[in-house]
Amino acid sequence: MKYSVQVHVMPLKELLDPQGKAVLGGLKNLGLNSVEDVRVGKHISLQIEASSEEEAKRIAEEASKKLLANAVMEFYEIEVH
Amino acid sequence: MKYSVQVHVMPLKELLDPQGKAVLGGLKNLGLNSVEDVRVGKHISLQIEASSEEEAKRIAEEASKKLLANAVMEFYEIEVH
Repeated sequence: MKYSVQVHVMPLKELLDPQGKAVLGGLKNLGLNSVEDVRVGKHISLQIEASSEEEAKRIAEEASKKLLANAVMEFYEIEVH
Repeated sequence: MKYSVQVHVMPLKELLDPQGKAVLGGLKNLGLNSVEDVRVGKHISLQIEASSEEEAKRIAEEASKKLLANAVMEFYEIEVH
């Protein structure tokens, strides 16, 4: 069965997010001052053939640990649909 | 009130996603052959001060149209928490 798995890879909260700061500055220049903080990461959509939702999540977990996320600077969250 | 708004910016479905193809190739090299397709986009987390959830969403919509997403090549989805 095919599962659609969403992986969010975000910079660790304690790290400075230069990309987020740049976007925040851009939004302020556009007059969107009610935006108080911005953090930018990756949204990765995987189509996985698996026998169960658990197996699809396990494969996404392995992909995240081995390739999608850099554990030194990023954390990831997995959602299976 | 402060709202946490998540914006997913993904490449349009009809466009080739070279970054997704590169990640798919990398996963195949790692032996994760049950991953059949990968699409990579941006996950942007916004902290917005607004008087209601609707207003927070409207601000995120304006930010997406003006800066976060390039309408020629990308589409966006907004989730308010």
